[in-house]
Parts: sequence; structure tokens; C-alpha cells
Amino acid sequence: MNIKCSKNQLLEGVVTVQKAVSSRTTLPILEGIFIQAEENKIKLVATDLEIGIESYIEGEIIEEGSVVLSSRIISELIRKLPEAPVEIKSDEANKTWITCASSEFVIQGQSGLEFPDLPEVSDESFTEIPQDLFKNMIRQTIFSVAQDETRPILTGALLEVDEKAVSLAALDGYRLALRKGKTSGAGNDKIREVIPGRTLNEISKILSEEENMIQISHTGNQILFQFGNTRIISRLLEGEFINYNQIIPEEYKTKIKVKTKDLLDSCERAALLARQGKNNLIKMEIQGEQMVISSNAEIGQVHEEITIEIGGEELTIAFNSKYFIDALKIIEDEEIILEFTTSVSPCVIKPIEEDYFVYLILPVRLLEH
Amino acid sequence: MNIKCSKNQLLEGVVTVQKAVSSRTTLPILEGIFIQAEENKIKLVATDLEIGIESYIEGEIIEEGSVVLSSRIISELIRKLPEAPVEIKSDEANKTWITCASSEFVIQGQSGLEFPDLPEVSDESFTEIPQDLFKNMIRQTIFSVAQDETRPILTGALLEVDEKAVSLAALDGYRLALRKGKTSGAGNDKIREVIPGRTLNEISKILSEEENMIQISHTGNQILFQFGNTRIISRLLEGEFINYNQIIPEEYKTKIKVKTKDLLDSCERAALLARQGKNNLIKMEIQGEQMVISSNAEIGQVHEEITIEIGGEELTIAFNSKYFIDALKIIEDEEIILEFTTSVSPCVIKPIEEDYFVYLILPVRLLEH
Repeated sequence: MNIKCSKNQLLEGVVTVQKAVSSRTTLPILEGIFIQAEENKIKLVATDLEIGIESYIEGEIIEEGSVVLSSRIISELIRKLPEAPVEIKSDEANKTWITCASSEFVIQGQSGLEFPDLPEVSDESFTEIPQDLFKNMIRQTIFSVAQDETRPILTGALLEVDEKAVSLAALDGYRLALRKGKTSGAGNDKIREVIPGRTLNEISKILSEEENMIQISHTGNQILFQFGNTRIISRLLEGEFINYNQIIPEEYKTKIKVKTKDLLDSCERAALLARQGKNNLIKMEIQGEQMVISSNAEIGQVHEEITIEIGGEELTIAFNSKYFIDALKIIEDEEIILEFTTSVSPCVIKPIEEDYFVYLILPVRLLEH
Repeated sequence: MNIKCSKNQLLEGVVTVQKAVSSRTTLPILEGIFIQAEENKIKLVATDLEIGIESYIEGEIIEEGSVVLSSRIISELIRKLPEAPVEIKSDEANKTWITCASSEFVIQGQSGLEFPDLPEVSDESFTEIPQDLFKNMIRQTIFSVAQDETRPILTGALLEVDEKAVSLAALDGYRLALRKGKTSGAGNDKIREVIPGRTLNEISKILSEEENMIQISHTGNQILFQFGNTRIISRLLEGEFINYNQIIPEEYKTKIKVKTKDLLDSCERAALLARQGKNNLIKMEIQGEQMVISSNAEIGQVHEEITIEIGGEELTIAFNSKYFIDALKIIEDEEIILEFTTSVSPCVIKPIEEDYFVYLILPVRLLEH
């Protein structure tokens, strides 16, 4: 193989596909990036067998062929190169010369023939979502994906797309994050699949803040995301996702309106001492036009007062502060609505207008003294 | 004790003195910050018994007294407070109320009477250096301070100040960093003392980029730095520092002029693979108008060429790349001079004009094949 391309093109490609390289693999070839020059295209690929990322870069093909180079070494190396054309040349024994301006590196590669093929996913049927919308939706739900493997299906998020609407839902048994959006893509398919949290995380890092469409197709238990020069293929999680609509309460007895930043700041201060204790517990007392947030840990007490608008009954309820803070941190609306029923039923966080998100948080039962 | 001050004043004071708090102490009181309100002054103090930092903040004293509060808790807590006046009030049992806007924290403090006094250092005799100069001098030498305790004196840097000149020198047995400067302070003393590396590090974080003077005094084995509202007292290292002037070669057989950035970039690229090996070794071959930098590790080879201006003999010499990179990274001059004598004697790095710095690096003996 012998190719020539710009340093920046090459770096962008390497940085993109590198996200699929696993740091803990028993197959040494998976620590590498597969570089292939064929049919006028230079393709970079990396995979950990769960997620695979392909990226095409522009350049000149002097001799067709392929090689696998250590991801860790070449990403550091390309980063340090001057901004000049880079030539990558490998011989039949996979010995590889990387030259750029007056720098020359010689490293030993592995055979491209040994690199596993990514699963085939047909892109005849597809749906479409704008990149910036999908990036935001991931950011606003990913924190609710279950971290432990007790119920594997909950380590992913449910993506539903049709011609008009898209939604992404994640829940971990203590809280639910649901983000909805509108789409008007040129797709000819619908989707309802559970995507692993890790895949969503890596996709969101690669997605740009632009409105360009991302095209989604699926075949069997594999899903394909295509945008720009990049293709991401991931396995899907199998099993039935929880019917989350059933657990979002439709009625409430207490409804308050509060400034998001006031509530976040108070929760963070109350959490400061609570975090040192075991339970992270903060108590909310809703009385009149005021919410008192307090925590009582071994090392000290915090008492916070914030002004609210209230409708319905007064209430005292307690939460794990982390769940509240996680949700409040990524809400961009200046004011939000909180709905409560009793001190042992979940709190619903909603926007004031348009229900484009719903966060649901289970309370912690307070021991009465 | 009962005081009132602005959140930002308090935070600035806490952040400053906190640098003297040791994370590993067997004396719990040293994990705290001593707050004292006396004679119209609010003083914050922290110490690990090696270095002590005092900072005065403006505020209103409602009741004189003192208390010691956990540094970790109050620094986090004050950071999260809204920008409003803060009141700190403690009772006779050191129970402490911190209130700010509609937030109230209650934490248990420790008795101010149990906090150790900082050593007394008279400031009648003193020398002066501009803050920005001292900050730069520390940054440009501190990396050469010995990290291991085999020769304790080398874990510090030698500071020499008289009416006109100041110099700071650090060496660790493999390299030397010397930075000189001019001063025209109003001091009435001279100094020649070895200051622990840790102290210099903390001072440089507190020093501003301004030209205001820092005033230095010493008594016995203690040194006092005063600037703005801050006083830093540190023990000095005892023993004789190496006479570094003796080890800087005055003559050379090979002298080259090179662009600092070219040399740094090439050394960094050559180091990429060398770092994976055991020795970090890079080889420099000076031939004609060219320097070839190469490294030969198990995982691959690097070959770099840079253009130089040469005077004297051609030479092949090898170094630990880390020592070269450390020095080149903090040199701001666009071009530098490198002087060599033989392949087993040190390389001297100097500015083109005015000898305001000298870096000396010992070579690694090359095994001939």
C-alpha cells in the first residue's frame, strides 16, 4: 500500500475511528486502525466487535493495499507531524514508512487481511435526524442509562423515529430521561431499537453541531449511522424495553414553577455535605411560595430557601441529590415545572411550554423522627 | 467569632492559603484553615509545618475570635455560594454558621487555639524582586529540581539576590537549569538560600503576572515572602548547594544555532517511539548545515532532519529526550545556541544574546555497534 494525504485529513479520520478501539481487548489486531486503499478510496476502520467506525479520507492512492497500525502510536504520531502532506507506505511484510516533510517513521504494522469485517447493514431503508438534534438528545438522556449490568436492556436507550417525530428514552430504575424532537427527514423507514449507551456516547462525540442529516438503517441486531464521511455500525440490545409511558404519572397534587438555576445551585450546595454522608439525601419542603431544601449529614447541616410559584398541596419529599443535579444541569430552559403526587411517588420535571422533555425521579422514603 | 465579608474576597483568601494544606497529615487540625478576627483584621492561615501561608482579607468584624474549618469543605462551599456578603459566626464550642443570601450552613469547627503558630521571621532586612520576574524564573527552572530524596539539598533551588541581580538554579544530577535576572528593588539585604521545590511551586501559583515587588526576608532556617495581602513562610534546605558555575563548561568545540520550535518538534516526534522503550534515548548527528535526530526503539525508528547553522566540529551525541524537551518547552526565544565539546560531555543551551539563562544537559553514552 502507498497513499498520500494531508496531515489534517488523516488526523481527523484517525481521531474519528479511534473511538471504536477498545483499550481492553484480548485480540491485539483490534488495538489497531485498519487502513485500506482501494478503488480510489482511502478507508480507515476500527472496531471492538460491538461498535465499528469507518471513515473515508481524501488523498492520492499510489499503490492499492491495506495495513493495520497501532492506534495509540499513530494517533500520537500524526498529531505531532507538521502540517504537510503525509505519505504512508507499507511493504508485503507490513513494515510501514510514514514520511512527512523531513520526518520519517518506520513502524511494524499487522496484516490488513486479518482485520475483521464489519457487519453488513443495508441502507436501502432508512430514517433521518438532524445531527445537532441527535447530539443534544443523547447529551440530555445518556446520564440516565443504567451503569450496572443487572438488567442489560437498561444499559441502552430506546430510540424511536418515524417520518415526523423522534424520541430517546433512558432509565435506570431510579430515574427516567425522555427527550422528544421533530424531524422531517427524507427517510422511508421507522425505527424502534435499543442502542447501547457506549455507542450513543461515541456517536455524540463525533456528531457535529450542524443541521446536516444523519441517516439511520438497521438489519437484524445491527444498526448503521451514516453522516459525512463516517459510518458507525453497532450491535443493538435485544429484549423488550420498559414501557416508560406507563410509569410517567399523568396527574399530580402539587405543581410548582421554579427558576432552573436557583434550584440547581441550592441542590448543589445542599449536596456538598450530603455527599460526605452515605445517602446523598436532600429534603425538599414545599410550603406557600417557598421551597426549603435541606440536608443533614454527620459533618453539618445545610438550609436553603428558594422562591417558587405553587399550585396544589404542600408537600415534604426527599431525593438522592445526584439525580436532581444530573437532570437540572442539562436543562437549558430558564424556568421549569415540577409535579408531585405524594412523598413516595416520583417527581416529574417538565418544560413550561411544549413537552419536549420529561425527567422523572423516584424519591427516597423519609424516616419520620 | 463573627465576621462579614464578600464571597469573592473570602474565596480568594481561601484559595491562596489552601496551597499550604497538606493532603497527607497525621495532625487533623492541619487539614483546616485558621480564621482569625482580631484588631480590625481578618486573617486566614494554613500550614503543613514546612510551608505556611497567611492572607488578609477585607471585611467587617462583629465579634473577635478564631476558629479552624475544614479546608476541603469550606473551599467547595464558598465556591458554590452566590455572589453576596458572607457571614461566618462560631460559638464557644466552635460550632460554625456560614450564611449567604438564603443559604445557611452549620458545620463543626476546631479550636483556633490549637492551630500551630507560624515561625517568626523578621522583615527588617529584606531584598526585593518583581513578582512577574520571580514567577517566570520559577517556571523556567523548577523542572530541574531533583524528584528523589537521595540528596535532599537538590530537592530545592538556590536563590541568590543582591541589589542588582537575582538568579535561581536547580539541578538534579542529569541537568541544570539556571535563570538570571536584573532587579532594582529597595532591599537592604542579600540572599543565598536553597528553597524547597514544593515552596517555589506553590509561590509561583499565587504570584501574579504583575511587576509589583515581592519582599523576601530570612531568619535562621526560615524564609518569608511578602506580597499584596499574602505572607508565605517556608523552611529552607540546609547544607551546601553544588557550585554550579564550576560545572558549566566555558569552552566548546561545536556550536550550533537552531530554531527552538524546529528542535522541540523534532525531539518530541523522536521521543514518541523512544518513550515506549526503556531509555528515552534520542541521537543527534550534527553534520554540515544539518542535524539528524533519530531514535531506534523496539517498536520502530524515527529519522528527523533540521537545518542548523554550525561552527566548529561535527559530532554525534545522545540524550534522554525528556531533558531536552523539558528545557526547550519553556524557552521563549525563537532561536537558541547549543554548545558541545565531546559526545560524553554536557550540552549547554543558551540564548543568542544576553546570557539570561543556561540549561545544561548530560549526554547518554552511546554503545557503538
